[in-house]
Amino acid sequence: MSAHKKQDSIPTTISAEMREPFPRSRKIYIQGSRGDIRVPFREVELSPTRRRTGDLEPNGTILVYDTSGPYTDPEKNIDLAQGIDPIRIEWIRERNDTEELEAPSSEYARKRLADPDLGKVRFPFPRKPRRAKAGHRVTQMHYARRGIITPEMEFAAIRENELIERARAWLGEARRRGEPLGTPFHRGESFGAVMPDKITPEFVRDEIARGRAILPANINHPELEPMVIGRNFLTKINANIGNSALGSSVREEVEKMVWAIRWGADTVMDLSTGANIHETREWILRNSPVPIGTVPIYQALEKVGGKPEELTWEIFRDTLIEQAEQGVDYFTIHAGVLLRYIPLTANRVAGIVSRGGSIMAKWCLAHHQENFLYTHWREICEIMAAYDVAFSIGDGLRPGSIADANDEAQFAELRTQGELTRIAWEYDVQVMNEGPGHIPMHLIKENVEKQLEWCGEAPFYTLGPLVTDVAAGYDHIASAIGAAMIGWYGTALLCYVTPKEHLGLPDRKDVRDGVIAYKIAAHAADLAKGHPAAQYWDNVLSKARFEFRWEDQFNVSLDPDVAREFHDATLPQEGMKTAHFCSMCGPQYCAMKITEDVRELAKQEGLSEEEALRRAMDMKSDEYRAKAGDLYLPA
Amino acid sequence: MSAHKKQDSIPTTISAEMREPFPRSRKIYIQGSRGDIRVPFREVELSPTRRRTGDLEPNGTILVYDTSGPYTDPEKNIDLAQGIDPIRIEWIRERNDTEELEAPSSEYARKRLADPDLGKVRFPFPRKPRRAKAGHRVTQMHYARRGIITPEMEFAAIRENELIERARAWLGEARRRGEPLGTPFHRGESFGAVMPDKITPEFVRDEIARGRAILPANINHPELEPMVIGRNFLTKINANIGNSALGSSVREEVEKMVWAIRWGADTVMDLSTGANIHETREWILRNSPVPIGTVPIYQALEKVGGKPEELTWEIFRDTLIEQAEQGVDYFTIHAGVLLRYIPLTANRVAGIVSRGGSIMAKWCLAHHQENFLYTHWREICEIMAAYDVAFSIGDGLRPGSIADANDEAQFAELRTQGELTRIAWEYDVQVMNEGPGHIPMHLIKENVEKQLEWCGEAPFYTLGPLVTDVAAGYDHIASAIGAAMIGWYGTALLCYVTPKEHLGLPDRKDVRDGVIAYKIAAHAADLAKGHPAAQYWDNVLSKARFEFRWEDQFNVSLDPDVAREFHDATLPQEGMKTAHFCSMCGPQYCAMKITEDVRELAKQEGLSEEEALRRAMDMKSDEYRAKAGDLYLPA
Repeated sequence: MSAHKKQDSIPTTISAEMREPFPRSRKIYIQGSRGDIRVPFREVELSPTRRRTGDLEPNGTILVYDTSGPYTDPEKNIDLAQGIDPIRIEWIRERNDTEELEAPSSEYARKRLADPDLGKVRFPFPRKPRRAKAGHRVTQMHYARRGIITPEMEFAAIRENELIERARAWLGEARRRGEPLGTPFHRGESFGAVMPDKITPEFVRDEIARGRAILPANINHPELEPMVIGRNFLTKINANIGNSALGSSVREEVEKMVWAIRWGADTVMDLSTGANIHETREWILRNSPVPIGTVPIYQALEKVGGKPEELTWEIFRDTLIEQAEQGVDYFTIHAGVLLRYIPLTANRVAGIVSRGGSIMAKWCLAHHQENFLYTHWREICEIMAAYDVAFSIGDGLRPGSIADANDEAQFAELRTQGELTRIAWEYDVQVMNEGPGHIPMHLIKENVEKQLEWCGEAPFYTLGPLVTDVAAGYDHIASAIGAAMIGWYGTALLCYVTPKEHLGLPDRKDVRDGVIAYKIAAHAADLAKGHPAAQYWDNVLSKARFEFRWEDQFNVSLDPDVAREFHDATLPQEGMKTAHFCSMCGPQYCAMKITEDVRELAKQEGLSEEEALRRAMDMKSDEYRAKAGDLYLPA
Repeated sequence: MSAHKKQDSIPTTISAEMREPFPRSRKIYIQGSRGDIRVPFREVELSPTRRRTGDLEPNGTILVYDTSGPYTDPEKNIDLAQGIDPIRIEWIRERNDTEELEAPSSEYARKRLADPDLGKVRFPFPRKPRRAKAGHRVTQMHYARRGIITPEMEFAAIRENELIERARAWLGEARRRGEPLGTPFHRGESFGAVMPDKITPEFVRDEIARGRAILPANINHPELEPMVIGRNFLTKINANIGNSALGSSVREEVEKMVWAIRWGADTVMDLSTGANIHETREWILRNSPVPIGTVPIYQALEKVGGKPEELTWEIFRDTLIEQAEQGVDYFTIHAGVLLRYIPLTANRVAGIVSRGGSIMAKWCLAHHQENFLYTHWREICEIMAAYDVAFSIGDGLRPGSIADANDEAQFAELRTQGELTRIAWEYDVQVMNEGPGHIPMHLIKENVEKQLEWCGEAPFYTLGPLVTDVAAGYDHIASAIGAAMIGWYGTALLCYVTPKEHLGLPDRKDVRDGVIAYKIAAHAADLAKGHPAAQYWDNVLSKARFEFRWEDQFNVSLDPDVAREFHDATLPQEGMKTAHFCSMCGPQYCAMKITEDVRELAKQEGLSEEEALRRAMDMKSDEYRAKAGDLYLPA
């Protein structure tokens, strides 16, 4: 088949709303030690502060962490059928420890490639798969332990550090100008996390070497913009996408990924269970600048007609290799669901709610044998090491209801996750541990404490947790509460929950709502931990809010479109966006005007604000009133 | 003017969606020690559990706290122009310590009454105002301190206690049936809150007597269904409504109140600042079964043309009496904004963000005098005591940005709130204290600790707090995180924040979104505190979820309509609601089927579940597979 024919079936242009630039924002790249390390950020231009004297005081720009990839770069041409630029390809080649294969090693992948009926859904320009040369491990952890700082590590370091630098520069400048700053940096309570004031490539290397951070970066996913996950870095979020038997199309899934990263997803999991998941995954990977995770057991189950008891190690192994050679960056593997733990779930209200967990439980019961993922763990580690796929060790026995939180089954599996983590580290394989689920607030902290202790500080990756079961339709909120708290306590990656959780498959609005709820949770966690780059953002936004720079308030917010739309619902006129009041109090009773008035007075008379306040209080009331009358702007 | 004429202008029938009964729910009333104490609840009928043998096991009903008043009682006739039933009127009369006045005591109220132009907006059948007889205090605190249990206290006690009784009965029954229950009651961490296993009227009395709870119940608001606010009771939520100069109409405001209580608002604040606020308030009060709060300084400011410096004690005093005689149940009064605290805000990023706080700051500066609310505090207490209006002492200097959290200005005012609280208690006036605002997570707890200590454990009433400033358009989420946490730590009443916060006036959807987000926060707080009635709700919902009783899952959720709508978006057919799978995993890979399968096997063979599991594991794999094959329902 020709590529042309394939393009007939799958539209390869992306919807316009996926590429719309953010308002007053431009994509910038910070260059690293070599020309091809170009780290993306979104820079938002701020309006000047307009003093009543008419003077304009520039506010510069604010830098925002940018997960959206080339889609928001107007200079990039996007053709889904070509995939995005493989920015890492030279770095991988240069290491000279991998080889290109003539054909996929997976039998299944070769079959799919040869199937003429799949032409209409197949990605037209697949790259040849790459694998470690015999005897080599090609993981970031391997390099890190040998003291090697890879371009990936430097990239991730710049991505974290540049924000800290900007935060520091902003603060210095604001202090020089004598701006009112409140407490511009709350120290936070980090519960043992140690976030340095400067994120060097060496620090990233060291964190990866000791297993406290991962840099998911499959050698077959060169399109990736590297990022790091660990509790001494910015808290990250994951968005799940995926069709199901009842679900959506290839292109819809690719666009869901692009949509999720547009709003801030740091990683994306493809949880597809329906038809053509091999091909869908290829489209997603070739177009994804963020790490992609999967749960390979879902596909393995497809291959045996949905009957868990017919799963075999051989089928699973082939699936791992199939997906590793496509470029999946991390695999959820439910190897901690041991036969002897299954009876511990018998008294649960909600039993086993993890799909992967239930598949493995069924297999264990049917065969009366130990979980084959557990018994083959070392072979799995070898595969992971040959492609640098990171483990996300599944929590197949996570609680699915408040009543089941923190029970014996859950913690038994967590201990086994620790055991598996240590084995993976023997193979230099990067690891994170998945966590719950449904937990009342007072039991959340225990989860982090046990995970840190039992799993050697490997990054924790939790789903929510939901802090109540009664919020169907609003579970993004019920879980954002738990996510913010568990992020504060030390969770490195927060898996989002959408409003459709427990009810159905998320559509585009749900994905956006879920991502934004989790960006809130992650940022709140960073603030509470005292991350050195976090509060800068709040400070810039609050200054804009205080100064009635409406456009800036919208543009610096997590979702500029919704902020603007909500404002315009009450005050639609363009002129109102520069008005010195908002629709909540109306023009006359605005709460923030008083402080502004006092400060203006200070400026006009060349006093410090405190002096001005004291003077204001010393003035006779009639005088003050006359001045105050003047100070009000006409409504 | 005739009432008939007035009804021409304001539609007095309420929109149909305000009265729609909740699905499979009926309004029930639990009778107290006398026939006219009838405490409302919503009882949701649950479907039976259908065993695969075809047996049906009944699940009974679940009781839900019901704030929605007569609007959801199909037997009540609602005519906004008549107001709802004044259920407390006999209780008030029987106490024989109040007198009916021929005319309002407030000069302003009399003027409004005499103004012929207001006929078209005036409530047609006003009741004569009532006031304490000379020398009497008519507050619930006064009665409580004298050892008197009022019908109001009994009503509120039943409202809290019946849920605990039901929770206990449910648990006993579930245990008798040997149902899997997980941990059906997590003990919680209450940080010193003491929630008894039985809420007696005497307990309510005692909590009110010692100032640790309030029962807001103005003698001029006989329509009220009494409820209690305190950290040893269920956490409550408040919804704000109110027009502004740019805003909405009388009827819209009444419907906003009805809409807010439909979704679960325990109290409602009318923050109107526009025209006809006196008349709007009357309509709201005559139709409100929940306590209504106001900020009287807003209206006082209207009376002086919006110029804070022209406010006087006399105008404010008349406004207090005007509103007290209409029936407002609690007043926010910013008496803690002292002249000397204003300079403490000079270095803030967001200055003074409380509207009331900024008005008083302006007045203080303009007059170079101490806040007249502070200097007249004892006179205010006397007014409050004559009508039983509770104080909600305002936090005029609350932080409006993360940078301003927990600063000197905020805590200085909180100390003064404590001083004012103790004075109010001298007059037997009920008090709660308002709190922030914008606070990063790690600084939330300090707020509760200081408030408990400085304000003698008076109920704390906080706005959010928002845990980040960057979530414009999603501040209901950013603040629900803080609200859940501060509720857990001991806040008794959570003031909601809608998605429009900082941007505009909330519409109906925003009110609903805000209320549901705060119901989640309040319930999560109750769970984490270990409230004896809280987890019952989650347990019932999760059992329904596990058993694929979709209708029950919707109906028991906080918002049955949205839950159903989201489900139907993926699986719209009616038959799918009884399907043993959901759209997330599809029919074949459902996670919850495995546990169900195991349990069914147990039931069929008359084994305990643990035995069944053990047996299942002992079976030869072929046998098990044959059985497992049978156990799957046809998709």
